[in-house]
Amino acid sequence: MSVFTTVSAADLEAWLKRYSIGHLVDLKGIAAGITNTNYFVTTGHGRYVLTLFEQLKANELPFYINLMAHLAHHGIAVPSPIANMQNDYVDQLHGKPTCLQTCLPGEVIENPNAEQCHNVGEMLAQMHEAARTYNGRMKNPRGPEWWAHTVQLVYPFMHDDDANQLHREVSLQERHRFDRLPTGVIHADLFRDNVLMQGNQVGGFIDFYYACNDLLAYDVAITLNDWCCDADGDIEPARARALLEGYQSVRPLTADEREAWPTMLRAAALRFWVSRLYDFYKPAEGELTYAKDPGHFQRIITRHAKRPSHDLWL
Amino acid sequence: MSVFTTVSAADLEAWLKRYSIGHLVDLKGIAAGITNTNYFVTTGHGRYVLTLFEQLKANELPFYINLMAHLAHHGIAVPSPIANMQNDYVDQLHGKPTCLQTCLPGEVIENPNAEQCHNVGEMLAQMHEAARTYNGRMKNPRGPEWWAHTVQLVYPFMHDDDANQLHREVSLQERHRFDRLPTGVIHADLFRDNVLMQGNQVGGFIDFYYACNDLLAYDVAITLNDWCCDADGDIEPARARALLEGYQSVRPLTADEREAWPTMLRAAALRFWVSRLYDFYKPAEGELTYAKDPGHFQRIITRHAKRPSHDLWL
Repeated sequence: MSVFTTVSAADLEAWLKRYSIGHLVDLKGIAAGITNTNYFVTTGHGRYVLTLFEQLKANELPFYINLMAHLAHHGIAVPSPIANMQNDYVDQLHGKPTCLQTCLPGEVIENPNAEQCHNVGEMLAQMHEAARTYNGRMKNPRGPEWWAHTVQLVYPFMHDDDANQLHREVSLQERHRFDRLPTGVIHADLFRDNVLMQGNQVGGFIDFYYACNDLLAYDVAITLNDWCCDADGDIEPARARALLEGYQSVRPLTADEREAWPTMLRAAALRFWVSRLYDFYKPAEGELTYAKDPGHFQRIITRHAKRPSHDLWL
Repeated sequence: MSVFTTVSAADLEAWLKRYSIGHLVDLKGIAAGITNTNYFVTTGHGRYVLTLFEQLKANELPFYINLMAHLAHHGIAVPSPIANMQNDYVDQLHGKPTCLQTCLPGEVIENPNAEQCHNVGEMLAQMHEAARTYNGRMKNPRGPEWWAHTVQLVYPFMHDDDANQLHREVSLQERHRFDRLPTGVIHADLFRDNVLMQGNQVGGFIDFYYACNDLLAYDVAITLNDWCCDADGDIEPARARALLEGYQSVRPLTADEREAWPTMLRAAALRFWVSRLYDFYKPAEGELTYAKDPGHFQRIITRHAKRPSHDLWL
């Protein structure tokens, strides 16, 4: 349940006078999502999503909101933030920072086919290209520094074999330098549940609140690890090839990126293995957790490690 | 026929690499419009309208294009311009300035009902409100100076009775000062053929190339004179009341605007009577003309002049 802050129709009708989107027709809470409060807001102009930010502060939002506006202006299928009468994308309701955005068509799909993977890869590359002219900057809050710190917090809870494997992965990544790889703005969390599909077409990329500046190939690896993976943690070759073909139809990977690709796939899995371990063992108490199985990404890494590096669907 | 500059699929496929909207799926010329070349462009991301400007220069476009972008960001149903990879809304093709915009849903309707008039009025008021924070400025190129000049060019072609009536109208407008009326960005040409309707909802306002800074009530009068008029030039009261109710549900007219309303309705008709007279008699030779009947707006003025000023659907 993702409605942490209740908004009544009367509250919203009054608040919507701050915008130019017409009168309220319907208001409905959105169950998905675990961080923010989200509502579907229907007015005479159409359907919108209202987000009340439960953790991010108003001054932390511009990077994400302006990024979505920038990408939407370039024709990338992302929610388009709506400005209020003061010309601000970020407003406030019940003491929480808010953003009102267009509602995109489509639905989350559990079992993507190869064509869908192709189209997600293509749109991802277009997003990377369109973001070149975006002038916001954000360090990746889940980068190597973060995971090097976080593994120390979870080692004590882990079995020795698992902890050793985790330690070896962190060491492997530390030995690699990626200075020559193209960087840019990445989504950094483009899992299936952050993409709306309309049939085989991308209806929209959503949930940009992990977006940051980092390696473009890392974003591709994160996306592939989720979109092309079966329930056992193995990558389905046809889907992986399709996603990479779609991506490279817009932006071919450089020679350096191809060389780094096997390590990049493992880095992308490591980041989520570590965050899931942290959520699972959660050293901080008293928080409601929605822990997902950390073992899933451990299995992905194990299988990536066994693959011959000359055949990674490129 | 509005395709003055032919664009082939091969031309466009190559040109689209300047954008992030995917590969070309379909390209089709648009017959409507008499000034610019327009194409429907379908890509993997959706459907767009490509305009090649046949008269306006690239440096004349930012006021209009940035206005549409501003309004779209505020949730007003207008085409949203798409930026290219260099982050520019205006590009170039075959030597003509171009703009690529989202394709809005809906269709032009010939015989609007009262609810449609209500919703057009409401959206117009929201457009006026949303444009308050727009910082572009454009003098009305079809204002009193223009019509005072233009009537001199058409008098010689007119019958005396008609010329006398025209002269009286120009004089009437000259005697009125509207200094105290609210001004802002107006569409200035919101006829039925510049609005797409989806059933009773506004799908979008289009064709902003007469937009300028002028009196807000003048924009309402231009809109009413077209949307609420029957074929004889008479205003249909139910539609007129609905349009004004819709408008005033968002922005109630001020006391000054209500007082000026009868004169405003005649000013709004005068502007089109004069431009149609000019197009009809066209002192300049050698141009292809699409002259519409000037008498239509003359009849509207005649009927406005006979109406008791206390009952103009407010």
